[in-house]
Formats: sequence, structure tokens, C-alpha cells
Amino acid sequence: MNIKETLFEKLEAKKPQMVQHRRYLHQHPELSFQETETSAYIQDFYKNKDVTMTQPVDGSHAIIVEIQGQQPGRTIGLRADFDALPIEEEADVPFKSLNEGVMHACGHDAHTAYLLGLAEALIEIKDQLSGTIKIIHQHAEEMPPGGAQQIMASGVLDDVDEIYGIHVVPVAGPEVIGFNKGNAFAGSSTFTLTIKGLGGHAASPHKTHDALVAGTNFVNTLQTIVSRRIDPSEMGVITVGSFDAPGGANVIQDKVTIKGTARYLNDELEQFMYEEIEKVAKSVAVGFDVTYDLDYQFGYPVLYNHPDKTNHVVDILSASQGDYFEHLIEIPAVSGSEDFAYYLKEIPGTFYIVGCKPEGTKSPYMNHHPKFEVNEDALVVAAKSLGEIAINRLSAAE
Amino acid sequence: MNIKETLFEKLEAKKPQMVQHRRYLHQHPELSFQETETSAYIQDFYKNKDVTMTQPVDGSHAIIVEIQGQQPGRTIGLRADFDALPIEEEADVPFKSLNEGVMHACGHDAHTAYLLGLAEALIEIKDQLSGTIKIIHQHAEEMPPGGAQQIMASGVLDDVDEIYGIHVVPVAGPEVIGFNKGNAFAGSSTFTLTIKGLGGHAASPHKTHDALVAGTNFVNTLQTIVSRRIDPSEMGVITVGSFDAPGGANVIQDKVTIKGTARYLNDELEQFMYEEIEKVAKSVAVGFDVTYDLDYQFGYPVLYNHPDKTNHVVDILSASQGDYFEHLIEIPAVSGSEDFAYYLKEIPGTFYIVGCKPEGTKSPYMNHHPKFEVNEDALVVAAKSLGEIAINRLSAAE
Amino acid sequence: MNIKETLFEKLEAKKPQMVQHRRYLHQHPELSFQETETSAYIQDFYKNKDVTMTQPVDGSHAIIVEIQGQQPGRTIGLRADFDALPIEEEADVPFKSLNEGVMHACGHDAHTAYLLGLAEALIEIKDQLSGTIKIIHQHAEEMPPGGAQQIMASGVLDDVDEIYGIHVVPVAGPEVIGFNKGNAFAGSSTFTLTIKGLGGHAASPHKTHDALVAGTNFVNTLQTIVSRRIDPSEMGVITVGSFDAPGGANVIQDKVTIKGTARYLNDELEQFMYEEIEKVAKSVAVGFDVTYDLDYQFGYPVLYNHPDKTNHVVDILSASQGDYFEHLIEIPAVSGSEDFAYYLKEIPGTFYIVGCKPEGTKSPYMNHHPKFEVNEDALVVAAKSLGEIAINRLSAAE
Amino acid sequence: MNIKETLFEKLEAKKPQMVQHRRYLHQHPELSFQETETSAYIQDFYKNKDVTMTQPVDGSHAIIVEIQGQQPGRTIGLRADFDALPIEEEADVPFKSLNEGVMHACGHDAHTAYLLGLAEALIEIKDQLSGTIKIIHQHAEEMPPGGAQQIMASGVLDDVDEIYGIHVVPVAGPEVIGFNKGNAFAGSSTFTLTIKGLGGHAASPHKTHDALVAGTNFVNTLQTIVSRRIDPSEMGVITVGSFDAPGGANVIQDKVTIKGTARYLNDELEQFMYEEIEKVAKSVAVGFDVTYDLDYQFGYPVLYNHPDKTNHVVDILSASQGDYFEHLIEIPAVSGSEDFAYYLKEIPGTFYIVGCKPEGTKSPYMNHHPKFEVNEDALVVAAKSLGEIAINRLSAAE
Repeated sequence: MNIKETLFEKLEAKKPQMVQHRRYLHQHPELSFQETETSAYIQDFYKNKDVTMTQPVDGSHAIIVEIQGQQPGRTIGLRADFDALPIEEEADVPFKSLNEGVMHACGHDAHTAYLLGLAEALIEIKDQLSGTIKIIHQHAEEMPPGGAQQIMASGVLDDVDEIYGIHVVPVAGPEVIGFNKGNAFAGSSTFTLTIKGLGGHAASPHKTHDALVAGTNFVNTLQTIVSRRIDPSEMGVITVGSFDAPGGANVIQDKVTIKGTARYLNDELEQFMYEEIEKVAKSVAVGFDVTYDLDYQFGYPVLYNHPDKTNHVVDILSASQGDYFEHLIEIPAVSGSEDFAYYLKEIPGTFYIVGCKPEGTKSPYMNHHPKFEVNEDALVVAAKSLGEIAINRLSAAE
Repeated sequence: MNIKETLFEKLEAKKPQMVQHRRYLHQHPELSFQETETSAYIQDFYKNKDVTMTQPVDGSHAIIVEIQGQQPGRTIGLRADFDALPIEEEADVPFKSLNEGVMHACGHDAHTAYLLGLAEALIEIKDQLSGTIKIIHQHAEEMPPGGAQQIMASGVLDDVDEIYGIHVVPVAGPEVIGFNKGNAFAGSSTFTLTIKGLGGHAASPHKTHDALVAGTNFVNTLQTIVSRRIDPSEMGVITVGSFDAPGGANVIQDKVTIKGTARYLNDELEQFMYEEIEKVAKSVAVGFDVTYDLDYQFGYPVLYNHPDKTNHVVDILSASQGDYFEHLIEIPAVSGSEDFAYYLKEIPGTFYIVGCKPEGTKSPYMNHHPKFEVNEDALVVAAKSLGEIAINRLSAAE
Repeated sequence: MNIKETLFEKLEAKKPQMVQHRRYLHQHPELSFQETETSAYIQDFYKNKDVTMTQPVDGSHAIIVEIQGQQPGRTIGLRADFDALPIEEEADVPFKSLNEGVMHACGHDAHTAYLLGLAEALIEIKDQLSGTIKIIHQHAEEMPPGGAQQIMASGVLDDVDEIYGIHVVPVAGPEVIGFNKGNAFAGSSTFTLTIKGLGGHAASPHKTHDALVAGTNFVNTLQTIVSRRIDPSEMGVITVGSFDAPGGANVIQDKVTIKGTARYLNDELEQFMYEEIEKVAKSVAVGFDVTYDLDYQFGYPVLYNHPDKTNHVVDILSASQGDYFEHLIEIPAVSGSEDFAYYLKEIPGTFYIVGCKPEGTKSPYMNHHPKFEVNEDALVVAAKSLGEIAINRLSAAE
Repeated sequence: MNIKETLFEKLEAKKPQMVQHRRYLHQHPELSFQETETSAYIQDFYKNKDVTMTQPVDGSHAIIVEIQGQQPGRTIGLRADFDALPIEEEADVPFKSLNEGVMHACGHDAHTAYLLGLAEALIEIKDQLSGTIKIIHQHAEEMPPGGAQQIMASGVLDDVDEIYGIHVVPVAGPEVIGFNKGNAFAGSSTFTLTIKGLGGHAASPHKTHDALVAGTNFVNTLQTIVSRRIDPSEMGVITVGSFDAPGGANVIQDKVTIKGTARYLNDELEQFMYEEIEKVAKSVAVGFDVTYDLDYQFGYPVLYNHPDKTNHVVDILSASQGDYFEHLIEIPAVSGSEDFAYYLKEIPGTFYIVGCKPEGTKSPYMNHHPKFEVNEDALVVAAKSLGEIAINRLSAAE
């Protein structure tokens, strides 16, 4: 029995524990940056195991678990996130959230559960491994600036050669693994624009600087950034989600507040879209004699899957296709964001998808929906795929 | 001593009572359509006087007092309004409002006070008069649909030949009377536009119908009504005072609510501006695949001072210029509205201005300001001017 | 027979000559600044008359004729313009224009003709006059910068106490004289905005700076100047008459040229509208990364009829109402422009209207129409009215 | 020596003739649908060769040459286009265009030349072939509706199993072959929108329906189609290339004409963009009380490279990589259009790229540039690659 077979056997045996972990975590979800109990649960799990455990981010709950192989070698990072969302669960499951208004609606409970199982199995076979596995239990993926950036800043991953991670999504069942190369998850920024004019009476606009009309002009001119300034073959979208200027019919307002987001699949657009939005804001100030304040926050960057590492993953998984999963498919980039992007800015690797659609479901509830559910067979598929990638890449020439 | 001299002597003698009335009313302001105490105070005043008193509007507080002259003749209406505003008084006067959050900030207390004084004097000399004076104590001028329309609808003024009224304004002192001919106070309408689209996620505008962008487009296109569709020499203004679409940066809204007003000094524009605003709303619905609901309310119409009646007033007052006041000046039309407009739609007459700037004040607080104050000398000027107009027009050939 | 009666008798007698002058000039129209023959005709007329004739503007055709009264006194200016328009006449008259493509379509032929008649009559009675009449035969009224400004700059009118002029308009017949006080003819400015971006292929807008979209944005934002920045009770209009950007469907243009005019009835708006238009142009440059060149030309200023001089004219003409004309009416300000405005900026006076609608015509062709016609009875009405104003004001106290 | 080796030997030997063909055609370019001499030259070439030659499109110059193999089998189409462009050549070559204002600036001369060479070689070895080769010499690729659609409509290709074609582009030298799967060349449509309002004088916009302002509003609202209505991950661009409304500053125009193009890489967008553009036009008509006429022309559809056929091509060429060319690379979709798209709508196949950058050139002139040049080594690369695809696919199982 080779090492992969050994690992797989162990992972199959651990399925009940993985399910148990997942359900426990599901019942005890915690918001980003507040994952005290979750972190304690994970630390407890590794206690008495032969690993080094560190908390690299002061005041946050991230845990890095180092599994040292018998022989020296390369270092591979494996990451799962563990924070939950401010959503009131509506799924009809026996292990429903016990924390009112908080729910593991994005599947991070499943991520953490399969990684606990995988880590345990790897620890058990570490005598057969060369090099180091770094298990990254990450906090706060859902809330920028996010946990990944903090972990990277800590330096704890400086020696990691490659990094891999998984997201579960219910577009397909656990028989499907999806990958893509290059820009895979969108980067996003958010902005709040405050336009200040001079208010007055509805009958005397000439004595005012009408902030509201300046604001609607801003929104209209804003459309030309996507329509005229971004390469038509690039993904780029700017949405104004809030135009907050309630008032009386009879009063010209002195201030309006506008909020929006920009999304992109090319890192160069992050700065470019900021500059163009600022330019439009400035032009409105010039043209309408108003002042503005633009609070612009860069969110998670574009997640870039390194093509050669993705090719390695495809090669590794292709050999198992038909075994523990059926389909390995290339998927298009998505408009959602992931702070795994921060790891991939510095460390080669890839981030891929495992299907988690519940059996028998035709129209599954998507991630972030109050009725989101996970097919727990995905736990083993995730653990096996990431496990075989890990042992394969540990011993890779480069 | 002729009848005018007699009247003026009486009015001078009644100044203290007029001041007393005004201060009492000032301390006891009541909101439009809720003027119970005010109405009772006025009715009490006329009790035991030889007049006919009626309440023409069911459920409202208007009072019509008919003063019958010795001889038959023409019928002249004199109107003062008596409602107050939802403003917390900040003026530093000893007779400050006792009703929290309510204030006579538009001078209707002064209007009612001088008309009580004038009515009493006219009653005292009614044996010398031919024809009928109808004193109109009007409720609810400040809140459309307003009291004037209700009084007109009651038919109680059907036999009135001419009607006159006054507003006090602090742009000048009581030494100034201002008049103008033709369109003098703006008409106004208010609207609430609700645009309904289809909401969704900020990253997927193509799956939505973005109501917010439709709304900003509406506001921008709206500008062309004033800029391109109304005669440049006509007064016309459309103000959007409210664009109510608060939300998250990340969400495309399914609904926005926009409120505004249209103002005009030409009655034909009332309907025209409505039609053009509806046209722009409809165009946005067509262009952005959204639906809309336009709630459009015509407010008070344009107040039209009949030129020949205004000429009569100018002739009458010119003879007194230098006597109880110094300056009779023609003033431009104003952008404010007055429901006296409803009377003038049916009955010839004019509505004019008496200065009420407090002595020694350089920058007086305007009507509707929490610190608005009235120079009480204006009471006598108002009473004398309206009194001499009344007796003059009673006996006019036509 | 007093002086006015003498003057009127002479003017009646001179009607045939006035008609002859008018028809000769009508047949020989000349464009602004090119009125060589017209000027020669006028000079020829005054030759051998006891007047001083000067040509105050070097290289232009203006003629000032000074008629010296017997006694010293005040100086009154009377002005008529004599240039024609680049219009091909379509009126069916026996004295049709002989100069192809040029036509006296604004009535300046009639202006000059009546003033020649009036001047001759005044010369004949100058022994009865005190003071000086300055007859101003002005060139180039139709083309900014216009003749009036040049004549004023020459200093030749520095000693003029009051100035008067007339325009014939066919809204009514010669039985009507119209006047107005204050701002009477609109001021106007013209602008040419060139927006320069960077052209390119239709498929790659991101490699360009789309001047066309910047240009349409300019036009749209421009609407807010009239709709939000000018007092609604002021006349103000901005029209874009030209958007010149022809091209292929497949090419993004690097340049667009936009032309327009601003009009206003308040001199303060002249500078204000320029500044706001520049502001909008600048905002477009900022917002769209394009450059612009704004060529802005102030045209004729607002023509301001001095109220007291207009009152004098009204008083003088009122006495003649029912005699040589029937109706003296106050008319609203008009949106057309007149370079008589330059005289009135420095010299007190007024500019008024004499009806010239051809008898029996229901829908007369307006000034500047190729079928415009003049009722020649207007010549005598113009001559008499201006004549009696002149002799009256010559001897006025001030 | 196998069949491929035989073919390649022949093609190498024919290089001088291919160059000669190419230079002759380059000197004698003809515009789309006017390729009389070109067609005659091609027909002459095949005369006395053992092939069937047909002209499938009445009145046009397309030529189909059928090469019958020894044995029955599949039918493979190979296409080259032969029309030129209305461009005055500026390239400094000894075989410069002799037809003034017409130039082979897109490389169709090279296309035809290599295909003549390849066809001749295939004819010479047809005894070794099973099945049929259809050589398609296509007219009028540059001008919609284009020659491809006409050839398809003729039915002459109804029995073709697979079809292949090549374009030369100078982004790289002949050592590079580029392919892509799926949507590869953009579809495009063109439109002309005429907006009709009611003209008038600049001073009286209220008497007009300002077509120019309606037109600028159209352009601005148009931006929201790309910015809000098309999937951000889809390529979509709408360019307005012409806004034709020249006029005087003083006149409000009654008509403007706007021209533009829409481009897309997803066939569903062809109809969708048309509908949205019409919607915006209609909304402007509703909102500005104008009428419109929208002339909308669908151009070439999106060119879709069948993934499995492209995979075959990649497999075939991969085997030759390092032999007659160096790099086989996947390239992104391009925003240009190609009427080869019409073949691929009905017949499986793929269309690929051969580099033609002249040796030693750093910044080559692109297709359609007056200085565009072709590296003639590309002729052999094109002929060999298409040749080996043809013989391979002729004998393919499917």
C-alpha cells in the first residue's frame, strides 16, 4: 500500500469524525474576528498531537499547525477558513445554528472539518513524509481586511513553497471538482462618496449648490468608466448600491452620500478604477461647485491561480478521476472575492472548488443563503484531493 | 369728518386691542385644520355684535362675518388667515408661544388681529355704509388643499363682488406697502416618484433592472424641462428634494423614491409641467425596463392679482401715501405660494403686502423662521389700508 | 402754429421722399461693414445742407450729422441703422433687392428713410431749436461687434445728453407704438467649444479618450445652468445649435466641436453664464481626460431702457395718442438683441417700437424672413414720434 | 516517405511560385465584390488541372475547386479570401499596388497565394487521398454581408464535413501559430439613428423639440447598456462614432443623425444589444417628444471555433512544433470580425492564425494599415499547417 492509499484509507475511516466536527462548528458559528470558541475547539483538537501550533496574529484567532515529516524537504501550506456570517439560519437541519443571527452559510464549517480530518491523517503518516505541511486555520475571511493578509504579514508563511485551498459550492455535487487558471476570483473595492453643496429653498436653486443633482450627475457619468474606459474583454463592474438623500420635497439638500463597489478580474484595474472614480467625483465638484469626500477602500485583490501549479493539480487529480470523484472540469472566473488571493500574491499555488450540492436537490441554495446546505460527502472528496496534492507536491522536484 | 376719517380715528384708537389680540393669538398658535381655540376666540369676539356669523365649512374652523350696511349695495370680501406652523419658537418675546412646537411664524396672528380691529370699526360705522362687507377668517392656509378652496366650494362667497387681502412681510417696515399686478405668487405642485426595478447582487447588474441608475437618469433628464421646454421668460423651477435609496454598497436596489416640487408663475404651466414630468418618468421606464408610480399633487395655483382692481387699490392708496405710510411700491412676483389664489380665480381683487420689519433691525428673520417677529405698527397700516379700500370699493360704480 | 405742428406738417409733406429713399435703399442692400453705396447715398443727401457731417469710425461707413439749433442747449442723439442681411429676398415687391443674396429683411431701410426725412425737416426748422441734434446713421447693426460700439468708442457722442431710436416690427400696424422700461432686449453671447480626446478603433474604447461621449456629457450637464443656477424669475437660455462630429460608425473620434449661444435679460448674467459654461467644460475635461478650448464671445449686452427717459417718452407720446397713431402700449422684453444697447450703457435714453404690419395681412412675415415687408405708413409715424421726442427733450430742464 | 512528407517536400519546392502569386495579387488588388481580374487569375491557374471548378454565387467571383481523392471518404473545406481594401498603399515594396487607392492591406493576397500552392500540391498527390478536398476561394470578406454567407447559401458546401481557414497577422513571425477555442472573433452590428424634433430659434427652445439635446441624452443613456445590462464577464462594447449635427450657434436643430457599432463575443448579445439600443432610442422619443428612425444592421456573427475540431488541430500541429514552426500558442479572443463565422455556424471546424511579422521588425504595421507588410515565409507555414490538417482530417474516423 503506497502512501496515497494509506492516506485515503485513513480519511475514509475519519469521515464520521469530520462530519461531527462540521456539525459542531455549524451549531456554534462565530462572526469574523470574534471566533474565540472556534479557535479553542481547534486548539483542543491538536492538543497532545505531535505538532507545533502557533497563533501568528496577535489578538486574532488564526492557528498554524506545523506537521514535520521524517526527512527534510519542501513546505506546503493547506488552508481552511473558520468564520461565519451575520445571517439567521433557515435551513431545516438537526444541527442548526445555536447562535442567533449567526450562521455558517458559506461552508467554512465544512472547510475546517475536512482539514482537521486531513491534518490528523497526515500527522499519523508523517514518518513517511519528507518536508513540512503547514495547516492554516484562518480567521475572518468574510470581512476585509480579512485574516489572510494578517497571516501573511506575520511572516509565518515565509518559508512555504506552495499553498492550496478549497471552497465548497453547491452548483454541483461532490462528484465534481472545478479548477481554473489565472484570474479566478474578482477583486473588489468599496467607496463612499459624500458630496457637499449648499442647501436652500426649492424655489431658489440659484442661491444653492444642489448636491443632489451633482450626485445624480456623478452616477450617470460613472457609467462611462465601464462603458468606455475598461477593456471590453476585461471583467469590470461598478455598482452604486446606495444613494442616501432623503428629505422634504421643498428643500434643496446640502449633502448626499453615495456608496458603491467596483469589481475586476485584473489586478491592474484595482488602481485604475479607483483613479477613474475619483476623476468623475472631481469633475462633478468642478462642474457643480460642490466639494466631495471620497472614502475608497481596496478590498480583496484578484485571486490569481498560478497556471503551472494549477497544471500540477490537474495532473494529480486527473489520475484519480473516476475513483473518489467523477468530473474534473475547468470553470470560468467568478465575480465573488476570496482573501486566499493574498497568499497567492506571494506563494505559488491554486485555489479550487469541490461540489457540495445536497443529493436530490435540483435548485440548491447558494452560499450566503439562509437555507444553504452542504452535502457532507464533500468532506472526504476535499480531504482526499487536498491530501494527495499535498503529498505529491511535498516530494515534487520544484 | 368724512367716513374715511371716522374709520381711521377708530382704528387708531383700537390699536391697543389689536396688539392684544395679536399677542393672545401668538401665545396660542394652532396647526392648520386644528384651530379650535382660535376659532372660538374669534367667535367670542363677534358675539353680541350686530353681524351674521356663519361657519361655512363643515368640520373646519372658518368663520364668515357679514356686516350689513344701511343701504343695499355691492359686496366686498376681506380675508385674514389664522393657522400657525409646526415650528418651535425661538424669538425672544414676552408673549412667546405656549404651545410647544407650534408658532405663528408667518404672521397670521397679525392678520387676524388687524382684521378683528377693522371689522369692529366697520361694524361701528355700518350705518354709513351701503352694501355688505364679508369678513373672512380663514383656517388652514399653510397646508394644501388649504382653507380657501373649501370656503369657495361652500358657496358662501358667491355673491362677493371683490375680494382683498394682505400679507405682512419683514423685507421693509410698516411705512411700505407693496403691490403687483398679474401673476404675483407662484403656483406649486409636489410629486413622489417611485421607480421599481429588480434588485440583485452588485456583481451581476445584468440580472437586475437597476432602479437607482434609472432614478439618477430621471433626475438628469428632468433638468431639460426647465432648460428646454419652458419659455425662458417664464418663471419655472423643478426641484428634487429627496432621493431616498439607502442601502449596502454591495446590493443593487429594486426601488428608489424621489420627491420634488414644481413652481410656476403661469397657470398654464401647472398642467404642462405635470405632463412633462410624467413624460420623463415614462421615458425612464421605457429605457430602463422598470416600472414607476407617479403621485402628483397640484398645490395652490398661481395667485393672479386682477390688474384693474390693483389699479383701483393703487389709486386709493396713492392718495394716502405720506399719511399713514410712506412708500407705495410695485414689487416683483415671488416664488412663494398663497391659497388666496383660489379666491382670485373666481372673484376680482388683489392681494398686497404690508411691511412688518421690526424697528432697528437690519437683517430681519423672514416668515417661517423660528425667530420671525412682527412690528405691530403694521397692524394699523394693514387695517387702515384695507379699510379704505373696502369703503371705497363698496361704493364704486363697479 | 407751434414748432411741433410745423414739424409734423413738414414730415407729412415729405412722406413721398421718405418712401422713395426707403425703396431705393431696399433695392440696394449691403451687408454689415460693406455699406459703401448706402453711405455714399446718405452723404449725398446731406451735401449742400447746413450741417456738419463726420465719419467717426475709420474704415467704416457710419455718418454723424450735426444739426445746430439757433440757441445753445442740450444735445439729443437720434439713431437709425442701415445695413442689410445675407438673405435672398422672396417678397413680391416692385422694388425688390437688386443685390443677389442680400436683403433689407430687418427694416433698416425704413429706419434710414424716416430718419433722412426727419433730419431734413429738423434742418429746415433749426432756427427755432435750441441745442444740437446729432443724427446717427449707423453701420453694421447685424454683425457683432457691431457699429454702435465703434461709434461710441470714437468719442463723437460724448456730448450727447440723451439718445433715442426705433425699430419697426410687424406684430402690429403703424397705429401701434410699443415701449418698455428697464431690460428690454436680451444680451447674447456665442461660444465654440472644441473637445480634444484621443481617437481609435470602435472596438477598443479603453485605448482612447472618447471626445464624442465627453461632448454629449457636456451638453447634458449644461442643462443644469439654466435649470439650477439662474434665478427662475430671470430670463436665461443656453442653446447648443451645433454638435459637429461626423464620422464612421467604426471609429472613435478624437475631436468634437460644439457651438451655442447664451441669452439673458440681466447684464450680470453675461459674465455668470460664461463662467458656468466654462465650469462645465472644465468638469468634462477633468472627468473624461480630454482637453478643451472654449472660444467665448460676448455679443451685444442687454438693452436697458432708462425708466425716467422712457417715462418722458410715454408722457410726450401719450399727448399724441389718437392723433397720428392709436395705441401706446407697454410690451414685454424680447429675446432678440440690439446693439443700441451700447449707447444706452453710457447715454440716457430709450429704444422703442413702431408697428409696420402691412395692411390687410393676418400673419405677417417677421423680421429676418425672406418675405418680410414694411407698411410704409410706419415711416411717418416713426418720424413724427421721434421728432416730437427730440424737440421736447432738446428743451427739457434735464 | 509518407504522405505528409511528400506534401511538405512539394510545398517547399513551390515556395517561389507561392511568392510569385502573392506579389502578382498584391500588385493587382480589387475591392470586395469587384474581384474580376483576381478571379480570372485563379481560374486560369486551375485550367488544365484535374479538378472540378465551379462558381457557386451568381454575379460574384467565388470559386470552388473540388479535388477528388482516389478513394471515397470525407469532405474537408479549406478557405482563403481574395478581396482587397480601399486603402492607398504606403509600404515601400517593389511589388506595390498598381491600383490607386486599393491595397491588399489585410493579407488576403497571401491567403490566396498559399492556398494556390497547397491546392496544386494536393492535386499532385490526390491518388494517395481518400475523400474530397474543397478549395474555397472566397470573394468579399471585407464588406458585409460578405462572401461567406453567399457561398453557404448556394449549397455548394452542404456536403463538407469540416472546414478550416487561416488569417495572417503580424503580431509575431511565421514561427508562431495561434489558436483559440469557442468564441474567437467578435460579432458586430452597426446602426444609424435619426432623431427628428422641431427646429426653431435659439432663444425659444419651448417652441421646439430639441433633437440635439435628445441626441446627447441618447448617447449618455446608451452607456448603461454596457455598464448595467451586459454580464460583466462578457465582452460587449457600443461605440458612437458619429454625431452629425452641424449648424449655426443660433438655431435649434430639427434633426440629428447618430451612428455607431455594437460588438460582442456571444451570439446571444447580437439580438439583446439591438433590443436595448432600440429601447434607449424609444425612451428618448418618449421623454423628449421627438420621433426616431433606427436603421440597425447585424454584421458578421461571432466566430465560434468548435472546441473538438480545435483540439484536433492542436494535436496535429503539436506533432510538428519545432519542425516548420516553433510555437503553438493559445490566444485570447479578438474584437475584430471575420465572415468565416458563417461557415462555422453550420460546419464544424476552426480558424487559426499564422504569424507574418517581417523579419527584423520591432513594431510591425497591423492589418489595414497602409504600410502593412507580410513575411512571405508565412506562406509555407500556412500551406504546410493547413495541408497536414487536411490530409489528417480527410482520413479521420469522424
